[in-house]
Amino acid sequence: MYTLDELAGMTEGSVQSLLFPEEPLKLYLPIKYTLEAGGKRIRPLIALASCGMFNDDATQAVNIAMGIEVFHNFTLLHDDIMDNADIRRGRPTVHKTWDNNTAILSGDAMIIYAYELISKCEPVILGRILNIFNSVAMGVCQGQQYDMDFETSDKVTIPDYMEMIRLKTAVLLAGAAQMGAVAGGASDENSQKMYDFGIALGLGFQLQDDILDTYGDPATFGKNIGGDIDCNKKTFLLIKALETAVKEDKKKLVSLINGRNHDKNEKFQSVKEIYDRCGVKEAARAEIGKYHNQAVAILDSIGVPEEKKSAMREVVKILIKRDR
Amino acid sequence: MYTLDELAGMTEGSVQSLLFPEEPLKLYLPIKYTLEAGGKRIRPLIALASCGMFNDDATQAVNIAMGIEVFHNFTLLHDDIMDNADIRRGRPTVHKTWDNNTAILSGDAMIIYAYELISKCEPVILGRILNIFNSVAMGVCQGQQYDMDFETSDKVTIPDYMEMIRLKTAVLLAGAAQMGAVAGGASDENSQKMYDFGIALGLGFQLQDDILDTYGDPATFGKNIGGDIDCNKKTFLLIKALETAVKEDKKKLVSLINGRNHDKNEKFQSVKEIYDRCGVKEAARAEIGKYHNQAVAILDSIGVPEEKKSAMREVVKILIKRDR
Repeated sequence: MYTLDELAGMTEGSVQSLLFPEEPLKLYLPIKYTLEAGGKRIRPLIALASCGMFNDDATQAVNIAMGIEVFHNFTLLHDDIMDNADIRRGRPTVHKTWDNNTAILSGDAMIIYAYELISKCEPVILGRILNIFNSVAMGVCQGQQYDMDFETSDKVTIPDYMEMIRLKTAVLLAGAAQMGAVAGGASDENSQKMYDFGIALGLGFQLQDDILDTYGDPATFGKNIGGDIDCNKKTFLLIKALETAVKEDKKKLVSLINGRNHDKNEKFQSVKEIYDRCGVKEAARAEIGKYHNQAVAILDSIGVPEEKKSAMREVVKILIKRDR
Repeated sequence: MYTLDELAGMTEGSVQSLLFPEEPLKLYLPIKYTLEAGGKRIRPLIALASCGMFNDDATQAVNIAMGIEVFHNFTLLHDDIMDNADIRRGRPTVHKTWDNNTAILSGDAMIIYAYELISKCEPVILGRILNIFNSVAMGVCQGQQYDMDFETSDKVTIPDYMEMIRLKTAVLLAGAAQMGAVAGGASDENSQKMYDFGIALGLGFQLQDDILDTYGDPATFGKNIGGDIDCNKKTFLLIKALETAVKEDKKKLVSLINGRNHDKNEKFQSVKEIYDRCGVKEAARAEIGKYHNQAVAILDSIGVPEEKKSAMREVVKILIKRDR
């Protein structure tokens, strides 16, 4: 069995060992720049922890884990162009450091590189792994499209939002858990359970992130607090508030969203007061609790020795209770 | 055995039969728009013709052929953003019809869709097919990077240029020929020969395209004549002219490239006159002849009945002698 620290060390070491051709420099330098910037490495960690549940050798999933991490970093690189984001992980984004064309092409190369890594798995599982990865990768693109569509829609419901974050965030965590399990030799039934586990984990994780963006501690959150409110992002909190606020609050909320001349800090405080009156934080917490319990119940149901699950139980704690 | 027309019909029918999810509309509509716009479908045709050389059933390669065509169309979609191109195949480009973000994300989805199609090949060849496709796909990205690098370099040599077009254009044709052969059950030796065949074919094809861009008949070329000269593209013709022109001509050529206020048509005529005096068209023709002979010699060396090669011989004639 592995401790979470051992798996985290294995993950980081593997990322740092990824090799790239020297040339063309401008294709590979932005990829190295992106990958070396860190991040939480959650997805490869999930793949390794899942593999370790079913196999004494978690390195069976290391190429898959790296492929998933490279793919995730590709999504950040292209999303940052689409969002015109300046900063990622405390450093200028690729399209700001170089230019849009470089970011587009390096991102494209990262998708292919992700497939190269995924393709290194044992030939006997290659077909199953690819089916999972293809479906997950396409799901992430669909999720990104829905996220962009929602920016200009005023009819986004909570179920719409949950489906968007299922695709944009949860399926890649789920794919990591399922592919790790397959690489570890899990049965079809157990690898499907690990996928469902990853979906619950991913949904809880994203809702947690929504709460932290408004209510988090700036010292520990890592992103600026209030970014979602500032850009009127249709999160669980905002959609729920629009659905449940009393007439006066709803009117005020709509005017805060549509207005252009609000002071950023005043707007943040005003929206937060409405959120508080609607109890949207508690509503989100209740949902998170639901997904947390689902994830734990799935782990409980898998017939492997309890000590093999301990690293994954740690992952759940880190992802779903991050502010406590 | 198949005639070229039969293979072309199979190709077009398969492209038209590709299925996409209904939602999200804005992700899949640009993909359909791109694929239905036509083009010559050279790459899938090569995959099917190559498969048909080694197998009575060319449909063995049809999913691979479609994956290659989808991948090729992805490269056009993203290249058009990078080049800020307005028109493709007589219609507004995707990023002009929708916007850059749509073109980026739909292109990303096309890479994944290409892998989905490729992954449908027979499981027993999946590993070999993926190795070829991964390598080819990365090569195309490298070629595109070199092409962009060359725009701002004044030290591009003929060998640099040949390496760039090998990556940007030839490897995908070569991969199509090799993967088609593998799908048809060719030996490793023969499938490697088909790769080498595709490289020679691709290099000859691109040099032919360079000539046609300056010397072609506007009625049959399909693109505007003179586009390369207008944007100072470092083609075989320009690089060769810069290397071989007499002092006065070289000075004039450099001033035509660096000047900004030249009349487009006058510039085209002046550059063409220098090209004519340097004999760069004939130099390119000699290179094309060399690659043509290489491609034919490889076909000759493959031990399958001559009638099985006839469709591929037609492909060679179409691609390398297009203006005669």
